Amino acid sequence: MLSACLLSPRNHLFIARFSSRIAAATKWTNSAEKIKFEDHRSIAARQKLFTINHLSPGSIYFLPHGTRIINSITNFLRTQYEVLGFKEVITPLIYKPELWKRSGHLSKYKENMFFVTSEHNSEDQKDSSSFGLKPMNCPAHCLLFAEEERSYKELPLRFADFSTLHRYEASGALSGLTRLRSFHQDDGHIFCRRDQVYAEIQKDLLFIKKFYALFHMNDLTFHLSTRPTDYIGEADQWDHAERILEKVLTESGMNWKRKVGDGAFYGPKIDVHVRDTYGRSQQTATIQLDFQLPKRFQLRFRTEHGDNRLLQQYECPVLIHRAVLGSLERFLGILIEHLNGKWPFWISPRHAIILTLNQNQDVMAYAKEVQKTLSLNNRSFQAGLLPLNTFVFHVDLDCNAAPLGRRLNEARKLDYNYEIVIGTKETENHTLAVSERGSNANRRMIMTPELLREMFENRMQSLS
Amino acid sequence: MLSACLLSPRNHLFIARFSSRIAAATKWTNSAEKIKFEDHRSIAARQKLFTINHLSPGSIYFLPHGTRIINSITNFLRTQYEVLGFKEVITPLIYKPELWKRSGHLSKYKENMFFVTSEHNSEDQKDSSSFGLKPMNCPAHCLLFAEEERSYKELPLRFADFSTLHRYEASGALSGLTRLRSFHQDDGHIFCRRDQVYAEIQKDLLFIKKFYALFHMNDLTFHLSTRPTDYIGEADQWDHAERILEKVLTESGMNWKRKVGDGAFYGPKIDVHVRDTYGRSQQTATIQLDFQLPKRFQLRFRTEHGDNRLLQQYECPVLIHRAVLGSLERFLGILIEHLNGKWPFWISPRHAIILTLNQNQDVMAYAKEVQKTLSLNNRSFQAGLLPLNTFVFHVDLDCNAAPLGRRLNEARKLDYNYEIVIGTKETENHTLAVSERGSNANRRMIMTPELLREMFENRMQSLS
Repeated sequence: MLSACLLSPRNHLFIARFSSRIAAATKWTNSAEKIKFEDHRSIAARQKLFTINHLSPGSIYFLPHGTRIINSITNFLRTQYEVLGFKEVITPLIYKPELWKRSGHLSKYKENMFFVTSEHNSEDQKDSSSFGLKPMNCPAHCLLFAEEERSYKELPLRFADFSTLHRYEASGALSGLTRLRSFHQDDGHIFCRRDQVYAEIQKDLLFIKKFYALFHMNDLTFHLSTRPTDYIGEADQWDHAERILEKVLTESGMNWKRKVGDGAFYGPKIDVHVRDTYGRSQQTATIQLDFQLPKRFQLRFRTEHGDNRLLQQYECPVLIHRAVLGSLERFLGILIEHLNGKWPFWISPRHAIILTLNQNQDVMAYAKEVQKTLSLNNRSFQAGLLPLNTFVFHVDLDCNAAPLGRRLNEARKLDYNYEIVIGTKETENHTLAVSERGSNANRRMIMTPELLREMFENRMQSLS
Repeated sequence: MLSACLLSPRNHLFIARFSSRIAAATKWTNSAEKIKFEDHRSIAARQKLFTINHLSPGSIYFLPHGTRIINSITNFLRTQYEVLGFKEVITPLIYKPELWKRSGHLSKYKENMFFVTSEHNSEDQKDSSSFGLKPMNCPAHCLLFAEEERSYKELPLRFADFSTLHRYEASGALSGLTRLRSFHQDDGHIFCRRDQVYAEIQKDLLFIKKFYALFHMNDLTFHLSTRPTDYIGEADQWDHAERILEKVLTESGMNWKRKVGDGAFYGPKIDVHVRDTYGRSQQTATIQLDFQLPKRFQLRFRTEHGDNRLLQQYECPVLIHRAVLGSLERFLGILIEHLNGKWPFWISPRHAIILTLNQNQDVMAYAKEVQKTLSLNNRSFQAGLLPLNTFVFHVDLDCNAAPLGRRLNEARKLDYNYEIVIGTKETENHTLAVSERGSNANRRMIMTPELLREMFENRMQSLS
């Protein structure tokens, strides 16, 4: 059901104007060897990462190997959040219209929203004919902020959320992972004091830089969008906020441009453009200042001066919307093309495949043993339960009778990080004939514990 | 917004008839000391695990500490799935009515479903006025099975899914974590051959037993529900399936009962009742055989005999619906009450709190240093990124000036696993005054690495 079509005109929407078609279609590696561009839908079909179906237009069915990648990205971010001070929450998907009225979505965003009804609406919910299916998490996070009396000491309060979001797109505009009706964001909302904005944005920029460096995406451009003509709020506040953003960007030493008048009506923002391996500029991360939503929700915190209970003084927090990846689905599409499906070990959905040379009983038994040892990191599984956060290696076993050459060709379409061949010799000597992806079957003879050590090292490599 | 009310009449719905009010209200510990029963909503409010809001009736807002527990449970299951052979997928939330017609939900389940519309429906989707918001994952998993030509060699094919589900409940019936409109399941669907049903059910039963033993819930009763009067399919097939289930249950040596005529119309099932610490029987896990849904979706696989491409023969797979926890939300509610909020270390959202005895600069600096070392497992955070699957300990720091006694009282309401007190003496000697939860502040003097070792051991303890 997933069409394996190549670069379509629609896909060009996401290729910035200044990158030529030629640049977009070839990739230069270190050895100056050209790699042919392959569309993410084609790679994903080959690697069985996701599929789509006419019964849910604009939604992705993540297949087991695509789910592994999405889970790895999500859990990787969760781990960083523990240090970055983001607190993950899980918020509902459907809310009464009252919320969307208050947030302004019902007047400004209604045509992009889906609404939810049940047969019981009329009898049961007299005040509302339907619920809004959330297109973004910010209103829910404002409710969570308002859940308690807040003190200046609690700020910055940073909520993260990976909930499913739904936004209407015309069915003709839907395309692969890039344009969807249903998606997930690495969404974050920071509620802070005015004097904390600088440090928060600085931290966000640094994390964005580090995150993209993981995938050797080091060419980032930051676009600062300033006050539009239809802005709301006070001009003074806008000027002050823009000066802060300018200062952070300049002092960060990163490459940035100004886009005059391109800010959202509620505040200035920074959009991040990442250059991929084909030279294309992809818009991904975003940081937006928002002075309006906290006011709409009448959010407040006790100021330092007013923390004395007898003399309570309150202030309205500033809200920073921020996402490092943006839509997880769209980021995955960018990443698939950028990496050309060659997953780095730590995020790979297929770490290794073991292929037996023949169907000898001893060979098959040894191959199975090796698979188990590598998958479970030599851990005994007697108790039947593995500890939380065990890193399980994804090792497949191919014991088919078909000729090895044909099986290797099939396996290579799936881009395993390691190929392991086991025949009678390896079984007798307790060794493995191992080759890395793309090494043209240049096999080394090693022992299982040695390979396991190497796999553990590879797992950490990108992070050192 | 979360009312901290005690045992309400509605809550009694989930207390099996045979457990008396007295048994339900007290808990006997080893030392024969009675513990007063506390409702999960009251414990959750105290520990800030979740909240509810009138803007989304029947949906839970998981606060940061509740989200930690949900994520731990989910990731723990994911780890086991790698060994159990379940393949996690992520499927869409909204589907055209065509799917629900085919699955039978539109004729049998419509009044329990929510439907999704957008302003663009009329122009854009002429064939359907709305989408169905999924109440269960099985139809989507049938689509995934049908995605490829399947061979008998691929079976059993086991899909797992943690997607958000929505089912209508009257607003008057909604209650805490037990009755919701929006929830998540540890959902699994096994597509298998007839001759694989026995082994699959056997594995499921074993895993259910091991999982509940983690929380010292060892008193399980299995209820086998047999053919109802309004069954569909052939009586022979039913008899055969019931005999298989009986055989598995008998040979497992587990405690089981027959509920004649109580099966679903599409197949017999096993429901699992777990006795909690208050002696109450809670229905949780379920295993259901289904002969009908695979037929409705015209699912098929090439049989062993027909795997020869020239002589293709096909058969329809059997579908096993299974969940170990059932609704994650409801299970969490059961667990909160069963544990009385005393989280075992591996799943605890609050591992330790450090309290300083005074506000001396050296003491505060040392306390901060200890917090960092314990949280990050003594790992350096220079690179700025932690490896995937790092186990981060949740360690809070309280440097307030208020008297220690008052702060300890506040901290104890949150049920930290460890209390760590640091004063001038500890700072000078580089030690910690540590006590475990419930040890009445009987403090030991230990060094940070020693405590860290202990925390690592505690993390694994329940699994050995």
